Amino acid sequence: QIKKKGKHNLIFDSFIELLPAKNGEEPTMQFLLEVVEILTSYIKKTFDKSTKVLDFHYPHQLLEGIEGFSLELPDQPESLEQILVDCRDTLKYGVRTGHPRFFNQLSTGIDIVGLAGEWLTSTANTNMFTYEIAPVFVLMEQLTLKKMREIVGWPNGEGDGIFSPGGAISNMYSVMIARYKYFPEIKTKGMAAAPRLVLFTSELSHYSIKKASAALGFGTDNLILLNTDERGRVIPADLESKVTEAKQKGYVPVYVNATAGTTVFGAFDPINDIADICEKYNMWLHVDAAWGGGLLMSSKHRHKMSGIHRANSVTWNPHKMMGVGLILFLLQGLLQGCNSMCAGYLFQPDKHYDVTYDTGDKAIQCGRHVDIFKFWLMWKAKVCLSPLLVTASVCRAATSYLYSKIKNREGFQMVFNGEHTNVCFWYLPLSLRHLPDGEEKRERLHKVAPKIKAMMMESGTTMVGYQPQGDQVNFFRMVISNPAATRSDIDFLVEEIERLGQDL
Amino acid sequence: QIKKKGKHNLIFDSFIELLPAKNGEEPTMQFLLEVVEILTSYIKKTFDKSTKVLDFHYPHQLLEGIEGFSLELPDQPESLEQILVDCRDTLKYGVRTGHPRFFNQLSTGIDIVGLAGEWLTSTANTNMFTYEIAPVFVLMEQLTLKKMREIVGWPNGEGDGIFSPGGAISNMYSVMIARYKYFPEIKTKGMAAAPRLVLFTSELSHYSIKKASAALGFGTDNLILLNTDERGRVIPADLESKVTEAKQKGYVPVYVNATAGTTVFGAFDPINDIADICEKYNMWLHVDAAWGGGLLMSSKHRHKMSGIHRANSVTWNPHKMMGVGLILFLLQGLLQGCNSMCAGYLFQPDKHYDVTYDTGDKAIQCGRHVDIFKFWLMWKAKVCLSPLLVTASVCRAATSYLYSKIKNREGFQMVFNGEHTNVCFWYLPLSLRHLPDGEEKRERLHKVAPKIKAMMMESGTTMVGYQPQGDQVNFFRMVISNPAATRSDIDFLVEEIERLGQDL
Repeated sequence: QIKKKGKHNLIFDSFIELLPAKNGEEPTMQFLLEVVEILTSYIKKTFDKSTKVLDFHYPHQLLEGIEGFSLELPDQPESLEQILVDCRDTLKYGVRTGHPRFFNQLSTGIDIVGLAGEWLTSTANTNMFTYEIAPVFVLMEQLTLKKMREIVGWPNGEGDGIFSPGGAISNMYSVMIARYKYFPEIKTKGMAAAPRLVLFTSELSHYSIKKASAALGFGTDNLILLNTDERGRVIPADLESKVTEAKQKGYVPVYVNATAGTTVFGAFDPINDIADICEKYNMWLHVDAAWGGGLLMSSKHRHKMSGIHRANSVTWNPHKMMGVGLILFLLQGLLQGCNSMCAGYLFQPDKHYDVTYDTGDKAIQCGRHVDIFKFWLMWKAKVCLSPLLVTASVCRAATSYLYSKIKNREGFQMVFNGEHTNVCFWYLPLSLRHLPDGEEKRERLHKVAPKIKAMMMESGTTMVGYQPQGDQVNFFRMVISNPAATRSDIDFLVEEIERLGQDL
Repeated sequence: QIKKKGKHNLIFDSFIELLPAKNGEEPTMQFLLEVVEILTSYIKKTFDKSTKVLDFHYPHQLLEGIEGFSLELPDQPESLEQILVDCRDTLKYGVRTGHPRFFNQLSTGIDIVGLAGEWLTSTANTNMFTYEIAPVFVLMEQLTLKKMREIVGWPNGEGDGIFSPGGAISNMYSVMIARYKYFPEIKTKGMAAAPRLVLFTSELSHYSIKKASAALGFGTDNLILLNTDERGRVIPADLESKVTEAKQKGYVPVYVNATAGTTVFGAFDPINDIADICEKYNMWLHVDAAWGGGLLMSSKHRHKMSGIHRANSVTWNPHKMMGVGLILFLLQGLLQGCNSMCAGYLFQPDKHYDVTYDTGDKAIQCGRHVDIFKFWLMWKAKVCLSPLLVTASVCRAATSYLYSKIKNREGFQMVFNGEHTNVCFWYLPLSLRHLPDGEEKRERLHKVAPKIKAMMMESGTTMVGYQPQGDQVNFFRMVISNPAATRSDIDFLVEEIERLGQDL
């Protein structure tokens, strides 16, 4: 029933059925091997610098269909052969986030062991709600969270925590649990049961704190933004004066978020100073170390997060796990107390094993994807997981190289003096270099990064992020977190920016 | 550098490095092929009924380590060879949710095309926040959501929607967006800006509605539970009288959840009757069709959800996608309005493509896992995705078979008369059958299902859920959603319950 066409090229007839169909075993194995061949060939190409980062098409082009690749959902089932073609095309028109010249996001690169972990997770196809159906994964999560709490510096690694669908949800958990700690009656009576509660975070913090304030019913007006210094760090005196002001108005300050590694500048808020103020005014201290957490594992850089052990909760996103995060709590029991609803069909109290291992009721989700295994496996293989730890070794060197290459280079201008985790810079085309500073220059400069980025994407050679921030017009934000990126890739990026931008 | 040990058994020395290391290509491919061999051999065994469903161990046993399998995170990196052993052991001590005799959860079974889709998704390793880095996946999501809205019956499939990390989060979205529709100022001013808002849902609805009420700041006391009839369906008159009562107290009723396929009994609330009341009192109608949504694609069963096109939002969980759900909205723009925070580093307005395709700001997450591809690929291969549609064909027959087998069988007693999607029943050991009805019998019967389940898990032969509900003591809830399950597996389950339970 399977016609061989060349060595690795099977043709599946449409009537071939996969498992659980009778005699489905052989076609199933051959189909999966074909898929794996497509995937491994994609991986090889991703690490090959002669391939493009992306083959850009506008939405209408992809929607119209390109070379037979149709995104539309058909009314009739497709053959398995066509399914394999779809797989190839999906990868072809996507973006190679693992390519050494993809610098567009904080998390980049592809980790082979992590990938193997994800393939296994999909195959196991289970769910984190109970020990009953995920005994190994539930225990792996508990042990891993304990290890992470030890690294944070909490006594004996005690406390609580959970894996979540990313840093934003982790930050949302921190706000929820802080609220539950101070006003547990909100769970049953709602926000009406409490006075006006206010939260504090840096003006440069991640926008998920704002999303959480809106979603959880605080309102974004009750999230007070803190001023930052010239390096992008929260000014503790500003926090204290805003706390005092809020109290004078009769509001109740409950929560402060300190960021360890801001998204754009890579700045570290002074945790110890903030912790002092939190203690003084009885506020919950959360540290959003989604990006910077990895430095905790580096003896050289750990000091940047000095004081983190004084936090009540910590968000930490393991490296290269897009869409996965974790949140740690100093105190045990709050997560369960805040979120549990004791659904009878999952969390029967009369099971034959210790039901405290049924951790599903701690989550805001019901079904929860198994995120732990990839992390656990990468840890076992690497003992080195986090973006900034990698930065600290391979990528740190590349970042320094970039900084020294462009800091005095004609046409480049740094947003900051001095090295940062993230390198933020402007590129000035020839036509702007001799313009006097002023509104005209600012307006024209603001348009440069988007134009260069657009040309970059259309040529598909490399990708890097840009944005404005406060008074600063659009600048490039360069982050190197892919150990596959070498000096030659950085040279390429700089020269590509010049090639595309000098005559703008 | 790679020693071959037999045909498929490579030994990786610890100094072998995977990509991106130089010359890492060959070991990478060999490592991945080894992993795939472990996974495909697991898949084959999963469909082989002579294997156990699980090899149960208590938490302390797994924590102590079994036959060299240690869950602890080491301080030194492990060799790739050990990583492969870890993968094998992880699967060995887990639960085979795809096994034909695993009936423990609503979603069971393993779909080979879906699996291929997940492997590809992990390999592509991107994120749903922008068109920029996920052009194909973003468009697939849009087209798929439109198709689903057409199936719901909204004019031209217009409206909005998003994939989310499961049905619970989908339901949370529905409550958030309803609140935003009626009181948009809550986004900025918090719940204090609104009067006391009340929500309504069936006493038998999924517990995620309760979780959402707590998390979003309504408070669970303001979620009013509706009485159900003898078949487990909401009684519309009860809704109307509770709405009237709430209004008399000065509360504002804003939201009603109707369930299409309740978790335990598989009941369908009367949507049209509920929609009439929602229109009359200007309330948001949400339909939680997480479990039942698939029937929309079956001309024979669609009538059970008659009126669903009148809903403002619909939760729908695609089949066999544990930890993935989607939420559809009739109105466009609310998701964006409610959740957007316009982070400058992701959602630059001056991009060169139409930025309405940057759908990331609609989500409560920042990074969002690519859930669409698996779904899209399964649709292409099957055009038949949902639990109840499969039930309607293969599994429906198996369910009927189970029902007729046990309805008059000695020792078995149905929780309901008549067929339901879910089959709920008690098993009475010999010692209970001639006891008079009363408290003693109830108390003893309550302990039977947990005991049988414990023995089942210890012997590892099969798994089925149990729970009490209201006045009803612990009963088994049998759901057949795995097309691999045949009559012989159902015979096995019934006989296994008798074997383990008759002498209790």
